[in-house]
Amino acid sequence: MGSIWGNRLKFSIFGESHGAGIGMVLDGLPSGHLIDWEHLRKYTMRRAPGHTPWSTPRKEKDEAEVLSGVYKGRTTGAPLTILIRNTDTRSADYEAMRMRPRPGHADLTGAARYLGYQDPRGSGHFSGRLTAPMTFAGALCSQILAGRGIYTAAHLLEVAGISDQPFNTVTPDLDQYIKLGEKPFPVIDDEAGQRMMDAVLKAADSKDSVGGVIETMIWGLPAGLGDPMFDGLESRISSLIFGIPAIKGLEFGSGFAGVRSKGSEHNDVPWFDHGKIRFRTNNSGGIQGGISTGMPLVFRAAVKPTSSIGKQQNTINLSTGQNDTLIIEGRHDPCIAPRALPVVEAAAAVFSLDLLLDTASPFI
Amino acid sequence: MGSIWGNRLKFSIFGESHGAGIGMVLDGLPSGHLIDWEHLRKYTMRRAPGHTPWSTPRKEKDEAEVLSGVYKGRTTGAPLTILIRNTDTRSADYEAMRMRPRPGHADLTGAARYLGYQDPRGSGHFSGRLTAPMTFAGALCSQILAGRGIYTAAHLLEVAGISDQPFNTVTPDLDQYIKLGEKPFPVIDDEAGQRMMDAVLKAADSKDSVGGVIETMIWGLPAGLGDPMFDGLESRISSLIFGIPAIKGLEFGSGFAGVRSKGSEHNDVPWFDHGKIRFRTNNSGGIQGGISTGMPLVFRAAVKPTSSIGKQQNTINLSTGQNDTLIIEGRHDPCIAPRALPVVEAAAAVFSLDLLLDTASPFI
Amino acid sequence: MGSIWGNRLKFSIFGESHGAGIGMVLDGLPSGHLIDWEHLRKYTMRRAPGHTPWSTPRKEKDEAEVLSGVYKGRTTGAPLTILIRNTDTRSADYEAMRMRPRPGHADLTGAARYLGYQDPRGSGHFSGRLTAPMTFAGALCSQILAGRGIYTAAHLLEVAGISDQPFNTVTPDLDQYIKLGEKPFPVIDDEAGQRMMDAVLKAADSKDSVGGVIETMIWGLPAGLGDPMFDGLESRISSLIFGIPAIKGLEFGSGFAGVRSKGSEHNDVPWFDHGKIRFRTNNSGGIQGGISTGMPLVFRAAVKPTSSIGKQQNTINLSTGQNDTLIIEGRHDPCIAPRALPVVEAAAAVFSLDLLLDTASPFI
Amino acid sequence: MGSIWGNRLKFSIFGESHGAGIGMVLDGLPSGHLIDWEHLRKYTMRRAPGHTPWSTPRKEKDEAEVLSGVYKGRTTGAPLTILIRNTDTRSADYEAMRMRPRPGHADLTGAARYLGYQDPRGSGHFSGRLTAPMTFAGALCSQILAGRGIYTAAHLLEVAGISDQPFNTVTPDLDQYIKLGEKPFPVIDDEAGQRMMDAVLKAADSKDSVGGVIETMIWGLPAGLGDPMFDGLESRISSLIFGIPAIKGLEFGSGFAGVRSKGSEHNDVPWFDHGKIRFRTNNSGGIQGGISTGMPLVFRAAVKPTSSIGKQQNTINLSTGQNDTLIIEGRHDPCIAPRALPVVEAAAAVFSLDLLLDTASPFI
Repeated sequence: MGSIWGNRLKFSIFGESHGAGIGMVLDGLPSGHLIDWEHLRKYTMRRAPGHTPWSTPRKEKDEAEVLSGVYKGRTTGAPLTILIRNTDTRSADYEAMRMRPRPGHADLTGAARYLGYQDPRGSGHFSGRLTAPMTFAGALCSQILAGRGIYTAAHLLEVAGISDQPFNTVTPDLDQYIKLGEKPFPVIDDEAGQRMMDAVLKAADSKDSVGGVIETMIWGLPAGLGDPMFDGLESRISSLIFGIPAIKGLEFGSGFAGVRSKGSEHNDVPWFDHGKIRFRTNNSGGIQGGISTGMPLVFRAAVKPTSSIGKQQNTINLSTGQNDTLIIEGRHDPCIAPRALPVVEAAAAVFSLDLLLDTASPFI
Repeated sequence: MGSIWGNRLKFSIFGESHGAGIGMVLDGLPSGHLIDWEHLRKYTMRRAPGHTPWSTPRKEKDEAEVLSGVYKGRTTGAPLTILIRNTDTRSADYEAMRMRPRPGHADLTGAARYLGYQDPRGSGHFSGRLTAPMTFAGALCSQILAGRGIYTAAHLLEVAGISDQPFNTVTPDLDQYIKLGEKPFPVIDDEAGQRMMDAVLKAADSKDSVGGVIETMIWGLPAGLGDPMFDGLESRISSLIFGIPAIKGLEFGSGFAGVRSKGSEHNDVPWFDHGKIRFRTNNSGGIQGGISTGMPLVFRAAVKPTSSIGKQQNTINLSTGQNDTLIIEGRHDPCIAPRALPVVEAAAAVFSLDLLLDTASPFI
Repeated sequence: MGSIWGNRLKFSIFGESHGAGIGMVLDGLPSGHLIDWEHLRKYTMRRAPGHTPWSTPRKEKDEAEVLSGVYKGRTTGAPLTILIRNTDTRSADYEAMRMRPRPGHADLTGAARYLGYQDPRGSGHFSGRLTAPMTFAGALCSQILAGRGIYTAAHLLEVAGISDQPFNTVTPDLDQYIKLGEKPFPVIDDEAGQRMMDAVLKAADSKDSVGGVIETMIWGLPAGLGDPMFDGLESRISSLIFGIPAIKGLEFGSGFAGVRSKGSEHNDVPWFDHGKIRFRTNNSGGIQGGISTGMPLVFRAAVKPTSSIGKQQNTINLSTGQNDTLIIEGRHDPCIAPRALPVVEAAAAVFSLDLLLDTASPFI
Repeated sequence: MGSIWGNRLKFSIFGESHGAGIGMVLDGLPSGHLIDWEHLRKYTMRRAPGHTPWSTPRKEKDEAEVLSGVYKGRTTGAPLTILIRNTDTRSADYEAMRMRPRPGHADLTGAARYLGYQDPRGSGHFSGRLTAPMTFAGALCSQILAGRGIYTAAHLLEVAGISDQPFNTVTPDLDQYIKLGEKPFPVIDDEAGQRMMDAVLKAADSKDSVGGVIETMIWGLPAGLGDPMFDGLESRISSLIFGIPAIKGLEFGSGFAGVRSKGSEHNDVPWFDHGKIRFRTNNSGGIQGGISTGMPLVFRAAVKPTSSIGKQQNTINLSTGQNDTLIIEGRHDPCIAPRALPVVEAAAAVFSLDLLLDTASPFI
């Protein structure tokens, strides 16, 4: 029962990679939002494969049909449902394939969980394709947030060990950051980005893959949102971000590097900036005690190297009960981080709208 | 509304640092467990302050009174409630103090969230003292888990930049690891541990603080527990761990370091070990697709340097509207990681029991 | 955010009466159930209109397309999604209509809740048509329950003031009750049923409508399921049943009539029936302290007279700000109880499977 | 896991009748409410026993200690916890008693659910005494609601078959209704009330018990609160009300009687009353499509005759495996409805505040 998330917005993601389709029911949206379809299309295209040399050439049209929740171009407030039909689903000998589980995939755990009845075609319900509906949700939420002055941005902080310049989290260059979404390979330092792309293509040539780190910023959130303890902002975001396949680490503000600093260096000092409370540093990543500080909220997500690689790999054979080898056919993303990035950014938008809707009501 | 967590176990944590007391309601426990009170006492003492040179000399007796849910020494299945009275709560001029918010604390965010009505004494509901009930819950859950062959262990992987030997996550030395809980400073490499302690005391001498990393292992979980997406094991653990104060990062298996490996190195290869499926490596940290692999579950949590330090710090003065300075009186933990460790391990136990209870029923 | 229900099964219902379609995502189903499509078709047809003189002649094909969660005819355990396209949706001047809200409908409350942005066509998200997905869910759950010896039955206990013979809730005639689902007008006493039908047709002739009471029984539930207080069986069922449009009352066992008895008459006395615990009476409706007794679970739901009637009615005109009159065109069910019956019975099945899945796990 | 309820307010009720105490954690309260302790005391005394000839002479002081969530007399917004110590708990041979389960009680179902480990003393966690914390919660919520012009009232519509005058739900006499809370036996028609009391005392004389119906009204709720389907107002209230012991039926507006009317009579007709939308009748009980209409919200709850009676009853003997008889010692309420009334009214207040807090935020 992992396909539902949210406090005030609830989304239910459904589908399998090679079944009839995938989609989402998004409940709890405010009514009356006039949807910008062109923005939605562009945003969701950022996740779609087949557009760049470093992604799989599989074509996924990802054309979403809206089944409910929209009337005359506006959200009605009732559950909004989208359906994305699966089209590019070539048949294959999946029954033979499922006997040799792919290393790094959920083939074995899925079989253990569902007693062997899971849909094995193209990873079924475990497919990364299931992130398309979340991207749609994030695109829609980001439109509503923009009307309240809240924005998100994300870049590839690291790919194959090569680093981009980190976000400035105290005095961010918002104009620059917001344009990252328009770049096919979203980095601040384009020269580093070129080296990342080279490393990705080189990994592809050797039928291997590399990982990366995505850094995300949300700005415009007022101070005082969230709750202490298990409904703190870190807890809320993390349960969503770790729902995205391939994410194996998450840190806020100074994160793991921050543990090597002293308290006197790490504490974010408040000051009055023309009567407004700001902080000199942002090691907390915009969160103190689970609650927003009013500074940009910043987190980084670790994306493991793609599990599907062209190289021959060792595995087991469930029909023979012997160890065996496996070659995964077809082409796959040699680095999934660039396509995971709009999903993580979308998740940040869904989180932010849920959070806004979760604040105390005007009656109280 | 952040004080409630859980799918099948639900706990509600309540209290303030200097109010009447703190405690917890734990609902959903299996009935009939005969409580080992001596084990409970020892486990919860690991978190209590005042026992070591590197922790605050404040005495917290942390004596928990059981208010409900136990009859003749066994759990009844009804909500189990504990109350820990606050005793060592010296009065202080909190009203003056709240005018100068402490850097690195939730003083400002708490005021924004609760419109200034939060209890300011000793950080109130934001106090680290609130982790005592969670430690109690974890101690109790770990007793029930031990009866099913499930165990947890944790050590200080890093303090002040000094590293302990990491857990062996493929062929762990379980006998050694389980005894870590008996050590006042739980490390595998005691020589490294000594250097860590020295660094902590040195930071204390300079009225400053340092951070650390806690590595935790859970073994004995069968394969096939959990769910894909937002109820995957990473999502479940993270929402709990990030509810512990001072935790700013979390990673599973290879985590952030793993993004620098190749897919061919990173993929965990399954093999038949005398007919039983095992994996050659454990870069996934025991989780694939949100579901347990049957290998040890491993995660690391980043603990920031303690916010309360003796050094003079800059801050603002809310009564004057001017920038100001602040000296925090009293003694505080120069490194909170050693005392956060049993809390993180307790959270791992609570998570594990909740997960076990969450599996499919015998009827289906 | 009312479209999601469940503890262990979660369903998300979506759609509007005259939009693209309606449907449901059902998460948490056990994997491996081989679906009986013919049973599904027959069960869901019981709710469909246009088959009898006492229901609206509108044709709704209610053909459900399965979008996810089924592979090779079996449930996979991943979310199961169905989509029912809307076909018989004649255009009408809905904008004019929405200015004169229909008495007894959610036109005014929907407008208040959604600030006027709700889909007004055919009652939109408030339409009784939204019960079709729940009927599908119930049909599916009832198949799984039958494999565990758990069955449901329902009849029209009262229509237009005419009463059917009540269920025998102590020694029920299960063979007879289970066949009620095959009757187009499910009553025990067919002569009373004929008088009910006559009364319904008479109401239709006078362009008016009548109400009814549905009595439902679940048998085969073992003793000991459920929880005290707010997750007791009455609480669980009621939150589901009151989600069905037109239901305004619900009672268990002796219900409202039972308040006129004495305690000495009302208490259900247990006795040993060949070593098995049974009860002499079943005034509790199979529930004591929120937990199943092992006796048949029995409840009755009050269905108000259909709001849509052909007679001219008074209302307001939102465009003129004056009181006005209204004639609702088209034909509608003169009594909705017969078509609500399979929905209520389906809800009983969904509730029962959720409850079974919610019991303690085999690990504990 | 039935002790937790709520969407925005969450309360966790804990305790057993003869254990250390009972209490509640109430999370999600708005901060800054200045508590009126005298009002709280008076409100909760309405539920306490021992004050009238028709209630048990047991003394329960029900003095609540506030353990958390209040600072300087105001709610802090952190979880508010109360503890009521058990004092009047005479020891008894409970082990012998549990062998002969009391008819109409949860003795057998509790044993089945908790495998025999439940606390049997004074019904343990199933005791009606557990309603004391809910009454406290309701008293507190009603103070906050009064500041927003929202009020509740309740009366005994029926006891032992004798009826009080029903509430006028269209043009209610609010001044009169609000004073019902001050009456020891809250009825509108005091002459009928006298006859009810006589019937209760007569039942007590014959060591038997009688039941009743409680009618509750909430006024001041604006139109447009709630949601369609499973989070509609009926679903929300019912899951709370059915958590109160002895409640076996619930109806809204016209309820069960309404099914005998015609649609043309039953539909509530809106009209403009000096520019404000009102309804001519209130058969919907203030709810259409799960959403508030702005008219008074009205519901009735059926309270079964008290299970504990002095008469000898048949039962089984679990130690002998034979049918047996039982005499319940001590005195018990011959009618529980008068003491259940403030609990139901309190539940209405908790529901109402939760609902208000659940409305759309000012940001959207």
